[in-house]
Amino acid sequence: MKIAIAQLNYHVGNFDGNQQKMVEAVNQAKEAGADMICFSELATCAYPPRDFLEFDDFIKLSDRVIEKLKELSTDIAIVVGAPTRNSEIEGKDLYNSVFFLYEGKVQAVQHKTLLPTYDIFDEYRYFEPASTYQLAEFKGKRIALTVCEDIWNIGNENPLYTICPLDELIKQDPDFVINVSASPFNFNKSSERIKMLKANIECYGLPMFYINHIGAQTEIIFDGGSIVMSPNGNVFREMDFFKESIEYFDLEEVQKGETISKQETDKIRDIHNALVLGVKDYFDKLGFKKAILGLSGGIDSAVTAALACAALGPENVTGLLMPSEFSSDHSVNDAQILADNLGMISETLAIKDIYSQYLNTLDPLFKGTEFNVTEENLQARIRGALLMAMSNKFGHILLNTTNKSEMAVGYGTLYGDLCGGLSVIGDVYKMDVYALARYINRDKELIPDNSITKPPSAELRPNQKDSDSLPDYKKLDQILVFYIENRKSPAEIISLGYDEELVKRILRLVNLNEFKRYQTAPVLRVSSKAFGMGRRMPIVAKYLT
Amino acid sequence: MKIAIAQLNYHVGNFDGNQQKMVEAVNQAKEAGADMICFSELATCAYPPRDFLEFDDFIKLSDRVIEKLKELSTDIAIVVGAPTRNSEIEGKDLYNSVFFLYEGKVQAVQHKTLLPTYDIFDEYRYFEPASTYQLAEFKGKRIALTVCEDIWNIGNENPLYTICPLDELIKQDPDFVINVSASPFNFNKSSERIKMLKANIECYGLPMFYINHIGAQTEIIFDGGSIVMSPNGNVFREMDFFKESIEYFDLEEVQKGETISKQETDKIRDIHNALVLGVKDYFDKLGFKKAILGLSGGIDSAVTAALACAALGPENVTGLLMPSEFSSDHSVNDAQILADNLGMISETLAIKDIYSQYLNTLDPLFKGTEFNVTEENLQARIRGALLMAMSNKFGHILLNTTNKSEMAVGYGTLYGDLCGGLSVIGDVYKMDVYALARYINRDKELIPDNSITKPPSAELRPNQKDSDSLPDYKKLDQILVFYIENRKSPAEIISLGYDEELVKRILRLVNLNEFKRYQTAPVLRVSSKAFGMGRRMPIVAKYLT
Repeated sequence: MKIAIAQLNYHVGNFDGNQQKMVEAVNQAKEAGADMICFSELATCAYPPRDFLEFDDFIKLSDRVIEKLKELSTDIAIVVGAPTRNSEIEGKDLYNSVFFLYEGKVQAVQHKTLLPTYDIFDEYRYFEPASTYQLAEFKGKRIALTVCEDIWNIGNENPLYTICPLDELIKQDPDFVINVSASPFNFNKSSERIKMLKANIECYGLPMFYINHIGAQTEIIFDGGSIVMSPNGNVFREMDFFKESIEYFDLEEVQKGETISKQETDKIRDIHNALVLGVKDYFDKLGFKKAILGLSGGIDSAVTAALACAALGPENVTGLLMPSEFSSDHSVNDAQILADNLGMISETLAIKDIYSQYLNTLDPLFKGTEFNVTEENLQARIRGALLMAMSNKFGHILLNTTNKSEMAVGYGTLYGDLCGGLSVIGDVYKMDVYALARYINRDKELIPDNSITKPPSAELRPNQKDSDSLPDYKKLDQILVFYIENRKSPAEIISLGYDEELVKRILRLVNLNEFKRYQTAPVLRVSSKAFGMGRRMPIVAKYLT
Repeated sequence: MKIAIAQLNYHVGNFDGNQQKMVEAVNQAKEAGADMICFSELATCAYPPRDFLEFDDFIKLSDRVIEKLKELSTDIAIVVGAPTRNSEIEGKDLYNSVFFLYEGKVQAVQHKTLLPTYDIFDEYRYFEPASTYQLAEFKGKRIALTVCEDIWNIGNENPLYTICPLDELIKQDPDFVINVSASPFNFNKSSERIKMLKANIECYGLPMFYINHIGAQTEIIFDGGSIVMSPNGNVFREMDFFKESIEYFDLEEVQKGETISKQETDKIRDIHNALVLGVKDYFDKLGFKKAILGLSGGIDSAVTAALACAALGPENVTGLLMPSEFSSDHSVNDAQILADNLGMISETLAIKDIYSQYLNTLDPLFKGTEFNVTEENLQARIRGALLMAMSNKFGHILLNTTNKSEMAVGYGTLYGDLCGGLSVIGDVYKMDVYALARYINRDKELIPDNSITKPPSAELRPNQKDSDSLPDYKKLDQILVFYIENRKSPAEIISLGYDEELVKRILRLVNLNEFKRYQTAPVLRVSSKAFGMGRRMPIVAKYLT
């Protein structure tokens, strides 16, 4: 039996586009003589459709795609994920389902049992869990159909659910398992997936076909890397990361159990490639081509510019230099060299005159007050307004250049440097931004060495350095990971050898600055805990503040 | 048996403050000779604690409050909601529980079964549903303990859950039902609650004590209105809305079934009072006193100013007038009269010179382009920057004045008039903003009549009117309600008699402007579907766009 895995890049709500992709894949698979083709979870509408699922019209449009695929399934079986209606009055109105289509008919529909509702996932918001289980039968084989999370409740110390759907399906004696997934990237995910699949094989001893989504949907990046597992626990094939592809597998070969290929992971390279895909899809799927960003001569804007150029082509990326009276010569030079190295467009607008005029206008109310964070923020807001003016006039999307360390402690100006339609490196801690810069420079110096080695500064007052108000970034990043990723208490972090006052100050800053993060752009997610939809904190609270 | 209901205003994560409130209430109830006192759902940590629930340290602090209340329960029973740990390895790590404390011991703990996971609710993100049921026994009575949603799955045409926990509890023959709730306000909620309670009484025939939370937590406003129901289906007492209070009920009296009091609802008055509480708690709980907002002379800023003055006192509210070359004289007059009528502080800063300086600075890049939305946005952004400069310098929180109709169609400038720490009327459609203005003027003209009657205008270019680019607000609001609140399709809305092109244009604007709403302040929620955490839409999508 020849099985095709179609690892495709869908677009939320773009039913025509998604259908066309799937129709082309089906036709290609037919030509290749495949018996079956498998698409990923909720492929009709793309994952995650979020509250569009509450619109009956949206579900109807998904139904139409299934109808079309059903028609095409005359001489090939099609496995595809889609939302379906719950015909019972009680319970949620929808299921998250996988269809088995063949001979122009729905041969089987299996609903998802385990509904991820944590981090970025909200599935119990929409879906009723499955309560019945049915194999698909095809050409003498019995196939267990599962959807993503259904196979993740195994091999964990602290399982999230009280049941494993394969424990039910296995009773019906399947020959192999198909899992349609939409499993997002984070820099640990690939190894977790293989561990989880091995745990399933150990338990059930069946070949598994794991079909993942590839492509970015706003902030969530799906990396592909679909996997075929042999029943002896070997990885038969791990498909490419960050690429659409269709591959064919002979079930008999898979059953033999030799490893054909396996990919190496590399945290920084993988983050780089994920972010490039994230930027590219954000623009492509919104129908935009051109990006703008502020170039300060610092490392954050340099890395963001390099990622944007890789995603969109340097001819579509404009860097705006906006020096002030506090900008050093080297900053302007470094920014200009960067733009030249990358081949992107650069423009310069000095903010001095606008800044002076703001101070004049405010003078009647500010008379007698001292220069403080107000005037620093004002400079950042002038830059934000100039970038947005360019964006409005010429149709760019403004890219935000804030890193995760700054975003965590609120080191940034709301409506100033926190402006932008997309936060490119907002899930990358400062130390990893340095590593990304070195990765970008792996073949030649694109980012000026000076931007990497000089002490970071916001340059909003004379001789300012980040280290004036923030601890060493290495230590800061470590404390932030303990709190944000690992949800440790202050006492636990202090017990690891960090200074008590420092820990309390940092955690307080994180919690006091929820209001800023609430109003910043969606952040491309590359870690297991990014700011945004996956981390839901109250703004008004009194905990560690 | 004398039962106290404590309808209190808690503060998320403020364990000391919440404990102190409850200790005082227990002492007061003891003095009043009560046998039992009931607090609301998750009263130890306040509702909703959101992802703080993932911090073990946070749960420990809640445990300590329960320990303290246990100590106090020597001669009074205490019913209180709190998170508890799930001792099973499988399933979510927490339960949402209600404790029955007496004689210094935990007499019973009942976990919540029905976990609301829709709109603003995320409970299955954190909690495992109950699977066992146990009554509390106290002074010869058997008490069924339930938590909020547990009693809401009855009397609905399309119930969300497949079980009703009271069906289990009733088998153990209880004498009455206690429900600890955190049930947020919307302008239909009070009548829904009474309908739901009557449906429960009809089914189970027992007296019910429904204890609600009062107070705002960031965007969510809890209105109190705790209810005691007699077993004949009469409302024995509905406690005050928007007020903390402790009341005492004699179980024997409740059983007799006479209605003692019932409150009238009034949509606009209730929205007004909810928003005043929402503003007040946002400031009080963050530890701020002073608000600033831009006064344009229009109705939105006028209503926002009046609400802020009612919440914070006019001496704590500053209105900033920021006329431009496009501002009409009447705008400036109307704004000044409003400030004088309300007794608030007002200041004026003209934006002309800053605006000219921006145009000068941008001229090398903008030469040859036409005046368009760029220059309109620039004016709005200058105003945003001036307001934020005042806020930074003098410690105000900036209030956002955008209404729900504008926010829906993206009629507002990101980082301009969409600035602000809190959106006061962002869940109030324009027609209801008019009604609020009339309500505010019910005794005397606080908002100048001219602000109410003149055609709305952003005044960002000569002779601009909202009606140049938007339909009549009455029609706009109706179409928006069909789409946003009722999730109707374009075809359904058109079939109700609305112009096809208009409907498609409006729905397209709603969907294209998700990116703006993503970056705006938390919106005080007064309807069943507010923008913000209760409405989760992808930014990158192709549906009705």
